[in-house]
Amino acid sequence: MAISRRVAGYLTRASWIRAMFESGIKLKEQYGEENVYDLSLGNPHLEPPPQFQEALLELARNPIPGMHRYMVNAGYPETREAVARHLERETTLPFTRRQIVMTVGAGGGLNVFIKTVMEAGARIIILAPYFPEYEFYISGHHGIVEVVQTDDAFQIDVAAVERVMGPDVEAVIINSPNNPTGVVYNGEGLRDLAAMLRSKEVEYGNQIYLISDEPYRRITYDGVKVPWIFHHYRNSVVITSHSKDLNLAGERIGYVALHPGIQPIKELFRGMVFNQRALGMVSAPALMQRLVAKLQDVTVDVADYQRKRDLLYEALTKMGYEVVRPQGAFYMFPKAPGGDDVEFVRMLKDERILCVPGVGFGREGHFRISFAVEDAVVEGALVGFERAIREIQ
Amino acid sequence: MAISRRVAGYLTRASWIRAMFESGIKLKEQYGEENVYDLSLGNPHLEPPPQFQEALLELARNPIPGMHRYMVNAGYPETREAVARHLERETTLPFTRRQIVMTVGAGGGLNVFIKTVMEAGARIIILAPYFPEYEFYISGHHGIVEVVQTDDAFQIDVAAVERVMGPDVEAVIINSPNNPTGVVYNGEGLRDLAAMLRSKEVEYGNQIYLISDEPYRRITYDGVKVPWIFHHYRNSVVITSHSKDLNLAGERIGYVALHPGIQPIKELFRGMVFNQRALGMVSAPALMQRLVAKLQDVTVDVADYQRKRDLLYEALTKMGYEVVRPQGAFYMFPKAPGGDDVEFVRMLKDERILCVPGVGFGREGHFRISFAVEDAVVEGALVGFERAIREIQ
Repeated sequence: MAISRRVAGYLTRASWIRAMFESGIKLKEQYGEENVYDLSLGNPHLEPPPQFQEALLELARNPIPGMHRYMVNAGYPETREAVARHLERETTLPFTRRQIVMTVGAGGGLNVFIKTVMEAGARIIILAPYFPEYEFYISGHHGIVEVVQTDDAFQIDVAAVERVMGPDVEAVIINSPNNPTGVVYNGEGLRDLAAMLRSKEVEYGNQIYLISDEPYRRITYDGVKVPWIFHHYRNSVVITSHSKDLNLAGERIGYVALHPGIQPIKELFRGMVFNQRALGMVSAPALMQRLVAKLQDVTVDVADYQRKRDLLYEALTKMGYEVVRPQGAFYMFPKAPGGDDVEFVRMLKDERILCVPGVGFGREGHFRISFAVEDAVVEGALVGFERAIREIQ
Repeated sequence: MAISRRVAGYLTRASWIRAMFESGIKLKEQYGEENVYDLSLGNPHLEPPPQFQEALLELARNPIPGMHRYMVNAGYPETREAVARHLERETTLPFTRRQIVMTVGAGGGLNVFIKTVMEAGARIIILAPYFPEYEFYISGHHGIVEVVQTDDAFQIDVAAVERVMGPDVEAVIINSPNNPTGVVYNGEGLRDLAAMLRSKEVEYGNQIYLISDEPYRRITYDGVKVPWIFHHYRNSVVITSHSKDLNLAGERIGYVALHPGIQPIKELFRGMVFNQRALGMVSAPALMQRLVAKLQDVTVDVADYQRKRDLLYEALTKMGYEVVRPQGAFYMFPKAPGGDDVEFVRMLKDERILCVPGVGFGREGHFRISFAVEDAVVEGALVGFERAIREIQ
């Protein structure tokens, strides 16, 4: 007995990824941190914007009585109101705080929402390549993960989604700008997906929720705007965090926003509030809630990421890598020269470059580069990228 | 479908408690906040100690680069080391950071640990009266809740626990100082419980975990010391938070400490780290981890609570209430005069006093008073307590 068979199974599957991370740590010990090019993590290297630092200092100097106590499980009404006003400005939809639940990051929000709607044994669809934690979130609440591949440009393949639909599908999770590809799902794909889901809702007589996990929404390049699923589909939910747009990944602050027309709205809201408690999170951290309430229209400097994307995309394509050009987030997902992603990532490791093989994201034959790192790391890696592709060609 | 049947069921059961809270809010609107005596919440009214405020100001003035980023899922090594050193001083057992996982409060810690050991359909024993969230934590991870009543002094009834034992029992959760009774489980009961569990481990060839949820450990009266289960039982885990001892309930900062000799220690640690991710919590909030690392030997002013306990205990017993004298936490759990807790709590509401009926804690015929409130609230409630008991006698 000791540890749950389910958890033991995950640990076994995850073990070779961990082995890679551990060998990365060894590489750094061996060659020195500055001689290893770690492009494996989605942990932004930048600090929060100055407005955050100022707001924190102001609160530390002038504490508000009771500011560290419990509040209502959904979060401070003022914070939820600030989020609702922001969403209303962005979408022109009539958001109120009764559609907003502040959560322990987007990961906490996804767990809270999934637990609220998940019947044991029902399915949730995710689109590959995908953020690997989705598998754990869904199966952790005893749901079944249904993986559907996106097309060659990593855009939604609506026909492929339709083929796996059935009355036991509770939800579809999308993630745009996407981790690991940096792709922004286009409006056409979202519109067609929404139309297909609407017809299935009628056919099955069920709600089918469209969940958009979008912590990278504000990190886009070349003026690209991420379409709102709220404009395409009523039974939709946006789940996000300030991990990337305010560089607060360690502070665990995010939210779930329900479409104002989602059904059944009251039960969903109450169910989420209940699950904040049932999962032991209780609420999002109090201090961070107060701070982000003031920062809804503030975003980190995206130009820094865009410069790195340009540098890396141009250099890699010139070397012969096949890469879908990222429009957002801080990832790219090139094809692995030679076709074997695990093998190619091992070759990169010999060049002291750490990346993650596509198999970890449900799409073999590719590998993920995270460029949320210092310029020197990106620049330093180029020689190794060049050598690795030459070696295999 | 819409919302999970499991969650829908909880919402229905919880609805009359919510109805009571809502009528409390109405009372406050009707009579004014200062004329309603709200003794229903475990939300400390005091501020964090000055050392916390100073440490926060220092960090806000001199931010450490990267202090809001992700860290390892178990938490900062420095913070876990500080907790380990504190536990070593307190218990003389050889704790290291490899036994400590920083969590999103004690609730987060309980979820992470329970999910790590829980097989679907297995049982976890809880002792009534109990903190009601345990039911949600256990059944939320598809375990079965086994309730065992404590004795008339609310101490552990080891024979009663033994009667429900079986090879499918994964764990026993205890909570001392106890919510809702304020009782500290005595060393004798813990020793006998541990001996019984050890013999059952041998009989079944299983680990049976003893989980001690102890956020109120440092809030005790008359010099009472809470015995450490670590001294009684090897397969034991302490789960706690700084919600009450540093008044940081809203900040969601706590930890799980594994006994240095627990089996299988590596798998349990790795399983918990994995479940921090799988539950979407990822880690405890970064800033709070840094702050509590410096405050492991700091505690709120307990004298304030002791004064309120004395005042309330003496006044209520004089009026004729039967109360087990609390030795810790900030609750007491008197017998409901007349025997019907729900009815008596309604009568108190007519006196504009808000309490929680014992049925919510798995023990009917009693009601919970929380005295984590201003003196004026305790004092103001006394007249109503007197009138209510007179009316029923």
